[in-house]
Amino acid sequence: MIMRALRVKNGELGMKDVPKPECNENEALIRVETAGICATDIEIVKGYMNFQGTLGHEFVGIVEECDAMPGLIGQRVVGEINSACGHCDACRNDLPRHCPNRDVLGISGRDGAFAEYLVLPAWNLHVVPDEVNNNSAVLIEPLAAACEILEQFHLSPSTPVLLIGDGKLAHLIARAMTRSFCLVEVVGRSESKVRRMKGHISKGYLNASPPGQKYPVIIEASGSPSGWRTAMKAIQPQGTIILKSTYSSTLKFNPAPLVVNEITVIGSRCGPFKPAITALNTGLKVDDIIDEEFDISNWEAAFKKAQEPDTLKVLFRFQKS
Amino acid sequence: MIMRALRVKNGELGMKDVPKPECNENEALIRVETAGICATDIEIVKGYMNFQGTLGHEFVGIVEECDAMPGLIGQRVVGEINSACGHCDACRNDLPRHCPNRDVLGISGRDGAFAEYLVLPAWNLHVVPDEVNNNSAVLIEPLAAACEILEQFHLSPSTPVLLIGDGKLAHLIARAMTRSFCLVEVVGRSESKVRRMKGHISKGYLNASPPGQKYPVIIEASGSPSGWRTAMKAIQPQGTIILKSTYSSTLKFNPAPLVVNEITVIGSRCGPFKPAITALNTGLKVDDIIDEEFDISNWEAAFKKAQEPDTLKVLFRFQKS
Repeated sequence: MIMRALRVKNGELGMKDVPKPECNENEALIRVETAGICATDIEIVKGYMNFQGTLGHEFVGIVEECDAMPGLIGQRVVGEINSACGHCDACRNDLPRHCPNRDVLGISGRDGAFAEYLVLPAWNLHVVPDEVNNNSAVLIEPLAAACEILEQFHLSPSTPVLLIGDGKLAHLIARAMTRSFCLVEVVGRSESKVRRMKGHISKGYLNASPPGQKYPVIIEASGSPSGWRTAMKAIQPQGTIILKSTYSSTLKFNPAPLVVNEITVIGSRCGPFKPAITALNTGLKVDDIIDEEFDISNWEAAFKKAQEPDTLKVLFRFQKS
Repeated sequence: MIMRALRVKNGELGMKDVPKPECNENEALIRVETAGICATDIEIVKGYMNFQGTLGHEFVGIVEECDAMPGLIGQRVVGEINSACGHCDACRNDLPRHCPNRDVLGISGRDGAFAEYLVLPAWNLHVVPDEVNNNSAVLIEPLAAACEILEQFHLSPSTPVLLIGDGKLAHLIARAMTRSFCLVEVVGRSESKVRRMKGHISKGYLNASPPGQKYPVIIEASGSPSGWRTAMKAIQPQGTIILKSTYSSTLKFNPAPLVVNEITVIGSRCGPFKPAITALNTGLKVDDIIDEEFDISNWEAAFKKAQEPDTLKVLFRFQKS
């Protein structure tokens, strides 16, 4: 059977006819219902990770085949995006998301979610509670990435935190922080996107008028090298910068200020899904960050919309064929 | 009264006649007996910190004047090099070494120790126990910087640690780690300097044959941008790089690997003197890293010797005039 898939090849994005994927004994075949465009997808098209294949890693879908766990068939699921080998040092040390042999859905070595079907190991899947709608479920992956900060670092509620960035991930981070009793201040580039954070932050600044004070904790999620420079300016001595941004470009960097001011930098990537699912199932609302939904056939308009300065989240919706 | 001082001006080092310094009511006048050349001194001559004045921040000397604490007069002392304002946010939060108004002996805003006399606030001084000789006492400042790692980070004894660097500071770090039950592996550039670490490390590598394995903790104290690159290659996912190197040059840097591999980077600078003094007073030997002592009049030969690839520590000795 042939299916449609939105694939990247040498920096060109295009819709292709490809065979419907087949799953091995440990994997599940999932019919995608909804998928989200992430900033990483846009960076990948620019060359980040040098990925060639079907793009997309945020999805919710229905399991159609699964020999390993037949109970999953028919269930609505989301999936952790790192597929680990299960037997290396990292895997044996409970770090499957850091398995050096891993592939990553739609990012490295495995075709992604901007297609009618995808395949993932059965143990990567989480059943979505009925109370969580598709437009929230598709945000579980980035919400888990936001919650990873809480896994890595003890953020006490009274610590002043500056969040750099006003994009999709920054919005989810602000909500994860607020839920953890920590109301962050935000510096962003889009007036409307900062305004849309209202109720989830204590203060918003535009880059044109960044805060003058210093912060003991800064979360850099701007997705741009300028965010690093803002962080270095606003961090207190012995402060901690949590780094979420990945981009294809390089920045010039002298480590001396890190040493002299004894700054800690913590790189932070994907997180475990369970806390994110629990949060959505106990009252956290996130789906108001979605601006527009497109049929996958309308992918050019969707990517255009996703890259407009005031856009937060754009989704693909798949019709059951 | 006129004294001799080794001063840096626009990147030129030279011996000058300058007035003997005068101390205010909170300061002490110290006659320098011994001073050490640090890698930072060499970087300062290259332009680091853009410092103009008398160089030198590692010293041991005798207090000659001290209105604030007359009991110090005649005592042999070492001194913490950061002079804080005492009333800013950092000072009130017990971070005087990070006071934004601070001066730093021989590094920023205060004439240093390569002179017959220096002046420091009385509360910066620590009396040296009789059991600790001058050649060990002059190493208290860099040993405190080595111990700062233990202040910042819990290093469990069974954690494999890679130390990058084989210079003066790296030698002191290796000893501080060993004393903390943590036998590090070392990658260095000089065969003789790595060999001289014997008894204080578990394994030594030369840059030509760096270790193939990965480490959960890396201490980067090479003083060179190549050390950063070695660290990024050898760090485990979710590992910690403790950054000690400061240099005047810039490196090109893409933060994505920090984020993807969730690396923590901890900048580490000066440490409190007390643990270092206690260690020297309870059996830690460090003075065998000293290669040669010079009279201050022979400063050109001393700086030449200090920059030879196989040299560790070079000292200045001052004759009582």
